[in-house]
Amino acid sequence: MPDTAAPSPASPSSPLDPAVAARLKRTADGLVPAIAQQYDTGEVLMLGWMDDEALHRTLTTGRCTYWSRSRGEYWVKGDTSGHVQHVKSVALDCDGDTLLVKVDQTGAACHTGDRTCFDADPLPLGP
Amino acid sequence: MPDTAAPSPASPSSPLDPAVAARLKRTADGLVPAIAQQYDTGEVLMLGWMDDEALHRTLTTGRCTYWSRSRGEYWVKGDTSGHVQHVKSVALDCDGDTLLVKVDQTGAACHTGDRTCFDADPLPLGP
Repeated sequence: MPDTAAPSPASPSSPLDPAVAARLKRTADGLVPAIAQQYDTGEVLMLGWMDDEALHRTLTTGRCTYWSRSRGEYWVKGDTSGHVQHVKSVALDCDGDTLLVKVDQTGAACHTGDRTCFDADPLPLGP
Repeated sequence: MPDTAAPSPASPSSPLDPAVAARLKRTADGLVPAIAQQYDTGEVLMLGWMDDEALHRTLTTGRCTYWSRSRGEYWVKGDTSGHVQHVKSVALDCDGDTLLVKVDQTGAACHTGDRTCFDADPLPLGP
């Protein structure tokens, strides 16, 4: 059975569709993890965080927009690097606590220059 | 640039490899989000949460093991449902704050019976 987070109130300042906002279950800091996946190859590119406003912008602008926990600001992926994520689809999971964003990634998704943020560090398996 | 969470101390009770534990950046409650992806088709199946011990068990037993935030217990995926996740690979992302677990999923990943937890709820795009 999937895990669930406690529901938290919608951000009243966001114009996110109330029907969508009502289904979101956010962390204590009002965020939902968003998995970015390359729409055609299936590569998992990265995981970012969205609040209601970041999700609203992602749904309405066609550009993947996250909330940066470290910088405390909205972050339109690619605005600095040019490594834009064009949004193809967004889905909410069965619990309302995770987003899957299928994108067309320009260039590298990772700030290290790797295609994905998971390329560099495989962990050893086994007893 | 990817987002980062504050590092938190490793769970002292887990036998997780200290070299791996040192690279994990956990949420305030000691967890790291883990994306489960079907290893051959690329389907993103679900997102769960792991603490050090759940990651240790995932790496060493070959069965994907999560920490259930709602039930406050370890959860070996498929123990109840039979819908097991056999672990093919585990990778840590560039920030050390997200895991990508490639698995071979038996049957449905979602408790609703859907193949993935993202099948049921596409969100509308557009202004």
